[in-house]
Amino acid sequence: MGATVKASPANFAADNGENGAGKVSVLNLAQNHDVHHQNAHTRGDPTMFGAYWEKMSEKGTITFTGAQSMSYYSNTKSICWFLEPELEREIRRLHGVVGNTVEEEHYVVVGTGSSQLIQAALYALSPPDADLPVNVVCAAPYYSSYPEVADIVRSRSYKWGGDARSYDRDEPYIELVTTPNNPDGAIREPVVNKPQGTVIHDLAYYWPNYTAISSAANHDLMLFTFSKCTGHAGSRIGWALVRDKEVAKKMIKYMEVSTIGVSKDSQLRAAKILGVVSDSCCSHGAEEGFEDEDEEEDFFSFSRNILKERWQRLSQLVKASNLFTLQKYPTQYCRFAKDMTDTLPAFAWIRMTSNEGGMDCAELLKEQRILARSGTRFGVDNKFARVSMVSTDQEFNTFLQRLAIIQGTNPIYI
Amino acid sequence: MGATVKASPANFAADNGENGAGKVSVLNLAQNHDVHHQNAHTRGDPTMFGAYWEKMSEKGTITFTGAQSMSYYSNTKSICWFLEPELEREIRRLHGVVGNTVEEEHYVVVGTGSSQLIQAALYALSPPDADLPVNVVCAAPYYSSYPEVADIVRSRSYKWGGDARSYDRDEPYIELVTTPNNPDGAIREPVVNKPQGTVIHDLAYYWPNYTAISSAANHDLMLFTFSKCTGHAGSRIGWALVRDKEVAKKMIKYMEVSTIGVSKDSQLRAAKILGVVSDSCCSHGAEEGFEDEDEEEDFFSFSRNILKERWQRLSQLVKASNLFTLQKYPTQYCRFAKDMTDTLPAFAWIRMTSNEGGMDCAELLKEQRILARSGTRFGVDNKFARVSMVSTDQEFNTFLQRLAIIQGTNPIYI
Repeated sequence: MGATVKASPANFAADNGENGAGKVSVLNLAQNHDVHHQNAHTRGDPTMFGAYWEKMSEKGTITFTGAQSMSYYSNTKSICWFLEPELEREIRRLHGVVGNTVEEEHYVVVGTGSSQLIQAALYALSPPDADLPVNVVCAAPYYSSYPEVADIVRSRSYKWGGDARSYDRDEPYIELVTTPNNPDGAIREPVVNKPQGTVIHDLAYYWPNYTAISSAANHDLMLFTFSKCTGHAGSRIGWALVRDKEVAKKMIKYMEVSTIGVSKDSQLRAAKILGVVSDSCCSHGAEEGFEDEDEEEDFFSFSRNILKERWQRLSQLVKASNLFTLQKYPTQYCRFAKDMTDTLPAFAWIRMTSNEGGMDCAELLKEQRILARSGTRFGVDNKFARVSMVSTDQEFNTFLQRLAIIQGTNPIYI
Repeated sequence: MGATVKASPANFAADNGENGAGKVSVLNLAQNHDVHHQNAHTRGDPTMFGAYWEKMSEKGTITFTGAQSMSYYSNTKSICWFLEPELEREIRRLHGVVGNTVEEEHYVVVGTGSSQLIQAALYALSPPDADLPVNVVCAAPYYSSYPEVADIVRSRSYKWGGDARSYDRDEPYIELVTTPNNPDGAIREPVVNKPQGTVIHDLAYYWPNYTAISSAANHDLMLFTFSKCTGHAGSRIGWALVRDKEVAKKMIKYMEVSTIGVSKDSQLRAAKILGVVSDSCCSHGAEEGFEDEDEEEDFFSFSRNILKERWQRLSQLVKASNLFTLQKYPTQYCRFAKDMTDTLPAFAWIRMTSNEGGMDCAELLKEQRILARSGTRFGVDNKFARVSMVSTDQEFNTFLQRLAIIQGTNPIYI
């Protein structure tokens, strides 16, 4: 954890003026000269989506009067008594519109971001009085926070068990399957497949701006997060779709003890924003083929277009030298887009073509003040590093400029 | 935990029409006939304060546009990078206005309610690699959630250690000191006082609506919560004032891993509401002695007046029979009110005068559908029970009506 490291909150360290390339576009970044903090969990700050919400600012506006939403309770008729009915409705509606999951037979459990729901799920899926902790595993490269999330409280019920690909014990385990995967955008399935195991599907990135929606996911326990869906990371809203009622009840119990529910203000705001996303898709779908310049673009197409352009620019730049390579992603049929679409992950998983002498990819990037996260944090080799693709335009442009310098590439490729 | 108990979310079970006394005023409660859930943590839903916020609804209003507060980050210059600067300002301002704590030399750490901050504090104060868990203790009667909060994750770093008064081991411990205390409203100090210990002061109720502010609390680690201060329980905002930077940093680290920060929407709303409270006190203070009927009452005086009347009615009713007794509370000089003030706890701690045959006070109350929490939940005898004093007027009136029936008291005393 970089709690004491001086660094910028974005992917890029502040430009200190020594380098011509960054001068023009790092004005805002330069304000961060004296920041004290770099939180390793949040480098994927999805600020890119802000452009859509600026455009839709009025539709996405919500007002709270002083007397509103004061009680602990949201819905005493639901097993998830702290879940705002409006949020549940909009969650189910959006999944219906997008077609990324089957939700009809699942309970919705709301959490303070999906991090809290992972913990709730570990609590719910671990035997309550086991002598030995259950192993929590995930195939490498895995989301860098999983080991810490599993181990921070030193539970006797569960502990981090490492790379799922090398898990060969005949003991109870919980496998985390992130699909599309963070950091590398791969579509995944469970790899352990033993009878003693349960699986948590983290579907944070299973939205049509990032990947083709190839089928409606229908797993026992699926996690989603508002942050990655619409970009509203500051609201800290996540949700789980849980098939088994007893598992859902245990997760709810964890949320009760841990935080006595989840911010109502953020739940209601999330309901509003998800509603705007659904509306944007529906008004579009209803008039298919109708093209009017004034017509508002649906959220996912808007985001896709930005991401697509960014991926094209990055790919072109990387191809211009032999220093790095990027993952290759398939083009697949997307149920939502009703067309073949590209995979456009929220992160670039950059690999050094050669790292003779064990040179660290993230270190190399850092020399040009590109703050990437090293592959070692994701359980793999240091020739890999992860960089966010969903930062602001300014930050993304600075990233490309600095990468071009490292590559010694002609600026024409930026 | 009553996760599967059919009951009302308020202090009182729904009236089923068999009982005349409740008929008139339990219309809303009757809607809860079929609720599935009673969350044991939240029976003190402070809905009473809603009356003030109805009056001040406009001043307390806040609007969020679609594009606002999207980033994970609130203040990259602060060690608590997810703390909204506006909230920090209003927290410090309100403590200054009320005079209930010295905050100048403390770090502010924001949490998803104070429950999460208790866990963050246990994490921060426990040795990171101890072989034996630290004992978490509190003098009985203690807040009924503490044992569960300490034990839910089965940590190897800390565990519930029971009543602080009987703690006599020479091992590391963490003592929770809730003052004024939940459930009994008593002013408390640490009771173990051994060199191996650290203390967490839970000051949720140290506000002038509940108790006299006799001095500015100046402890190493103090917890406060928006819920009990202004009544906005649904926003799930709490804050810790922490003297030691390393302890603050560990708590922040816990919040990062646990929930990657705290809802910005609720933080900004809390800032707004706390600001209205400070304003209401200051405009009053500035014109001391000036009485204008149009002048708005400050929040604490308004709440005090309602609580005072409720306590008077309850005391009068209880005195009318010999069945129950209430705690006696001192009248003390309050720095905020600049006058002698009564202690008016958020809960009534009711004791059966006699419980021959071990009769359970909460059971007796339950017979008239008064949902009290038994003394056994707070680590003491079942002749005690706790009832909320901060519910809605309707709920409070129903409580008194039903209590009168149990006592066989003449309705004149209600």
